[in-house]
Amino acid sequence: MSMTRRNLLAGAAVASAMLPGLRAASDVRHYVRFRKENERPTFGELDGETIHPIDGSVLGDRKRTGDKVAVADVKLLFPIRPPKVFAVGLNYKSHLGSTPAPKNPEIFYKPTTALQNPGDPIFIPSDSKNLHYEAEFVIVVGKNARRIEESQAADHILGYTCGNDVSERDWQDGDLQWWRAKGSDTFAPMGPSIAVGLDYMQSEISLRLNGETKQEQKVSDLLFKPEAIVSFISHYVGLQAGDVIFTGTPGSTSAMKHGDVCEVEVTGIGVLENRVRNRRA
Amino acid sequence: MSMTRRNLLAGAAVASAMLPGLRAASDVRHYVRFRKENERPTFGELDGETIHPIDGSVLGDRKRTGDKVAVADVKLLFPIRPPKVFAVGLNYKSHLGSTPAPKNPEIFYKPTTALQNPGDPIFIPSDSKNLHYEAEFVIVVGKNARRIEESQAADHILGYTCGNDVSERDWQDGDLQWWRAKGSDTFAPMGPSIAVGLDYMQSEISLRLNGETKQEQKVSDLLFKPEAIVSFISHYVGLQAGDVIFTGTPGSTSAMKHGDVCEVEVTGIGVLENRVRNRRA
Repeated sequence: MSMTRRNLLAGAAVASAMLPGLRAASDVRHYVRFRKENERPTFGELDGETIHPIDGSVLGDRKRTGDKVAVADVKLLFPIRPPKVFAVGLNYKSHLGSTPAPKNPEIFYKPTTALQNPGDPIFIPSDSKNLHYEAEFVIVVGKNARRIEESQAADHILGYTCGNDVSERDWQDGDLQWWRAKGSDTFAPMGPSIAVGLDYMQSEISLRLNGETKQEQKVSDLLFKPEAIVSFISHYVGLQAGDVIFTGTPGSTSAMKHGDVCEVEVTGIGVLENRVRNRRA
Repeated sequence: MSMTRRNLLAGAAVASAMLPGLRAASDVRHYVRFRKENERPTFGELDGETIHPIDGSVLGDRKRTGDKVAVADVKLLFPIRPPKVFAVGLNYKSHLGSTPAPKNPEIFYKPTTALQNPGDPIFIPSDSKNLHYEAEFVIVVGKNARRIEESQAADHILGYTCGNDVSERDWQDGDLQWWRAKGSDTFAPMGPSIAVGLDYMQSEISLRLNGETKQEQKVSDLLFKPEAIVSFISHYVGLQAGDVIFTGTPGSTSAMKHGDVCEVEVTGIGVLENRVRNRRA
């Protein structure tokens, strides 16, 4: 069994086993995007080691087609192709250091070309010297939203997934804006599933580098919660169905090197695993 | 005749009349995207007051269908729907002030939702107090590009258009990144046409606010030329066919208010005109 598949299932097990009494496991559904060899990417609902393909997009009514596919027989992809990728900086007290807490969510963009599949490599650019992981809880927007209030935001959120806001610290410090520091190709691994119906206030986020836990925090420690972030963005920039929002990373981070294995886990969602590779010249 | 149409034609006239001896006007072709009422957006080649619709996308072989449409009978749209919108900061000496010239192009992103059509409003957000124009020369990427050299870049550029990198200076100074300062809805007017075959070294860029010239510069004064920008970005972030790159603004800028009319002109391309409107609460 591949490491990716094992961890995906571990993540699904967490959803069923580790939130007893908080929300019945049956309330949370997990959607993936996958490809069978030579076929088009397809959305499906994950149930243990089986995927039930659904009609059309995960943004639709998510009706099962009646087919079944084994997880072992497919390649998992990042779980949605978003029109835009937003991210939030400075959103956990544990990550602020000496920086004062922001008054509003501090937003930036990652380009869609930075997205990477679960199990696929994070490439270290040839001139990068200080590439860090950042475990993040990711919002998946379900409906277009312009100038909505915080009380309306939950209705515009489809669900949540895991992300790694890979960051080149030297470029982050030296460039005018973070376009390549946080936007280079493969700097936005995302997945494995979109959890619909998740009570994120009960979830924990963690990052393991080569099996050692490096980041660990309650998602409820977010300074700006998903509903506040969605509302704030929507007053300036139109949110589109399928947009994703990386919500910020907790604690401190460290550099990765060729061969490292990086896992982001959110309880109730699953494990996003990627190996780190030098870009061949 | 509408102001937009008049200016579009003025721009086309410039293409024919103001570059004599530099490049035969017939070498430069102008492509627009337009919509007839209740029909789907269509690409076409502009010839005076007539549009010749083309088969499929402007990224294809641009073969005329044989139909003809009068410019007066259609709504002009921003001339391509790009997967991504890049922009460059600090790219004219005249705009640097006391800031040293950058060693590399300084890139940032504008979201695709910020794009606005020629002739449609630039909305002042209700809490904005210091909204500036920025006339810009815009590259339209014609082919996917990853890690290409400067000598290969011209082959990956389809053409050029005009853009207005609308910027909220207070947010630009106060926020961590420029996401809303340069990314709010309607902050990226673009058009009217994509000029294919343009010798940009002969073009001038200018901005008029209510008819008064506020910015005026030779495009050849760009510190990083289009080929250098395309190559540099492509080493980090995959460029996709249709991506656009705003290349930076010259000189100094000033605040706009409700009712102002803002025109960006690039000789050989045309005039991009937008009125400024307060967002109704």
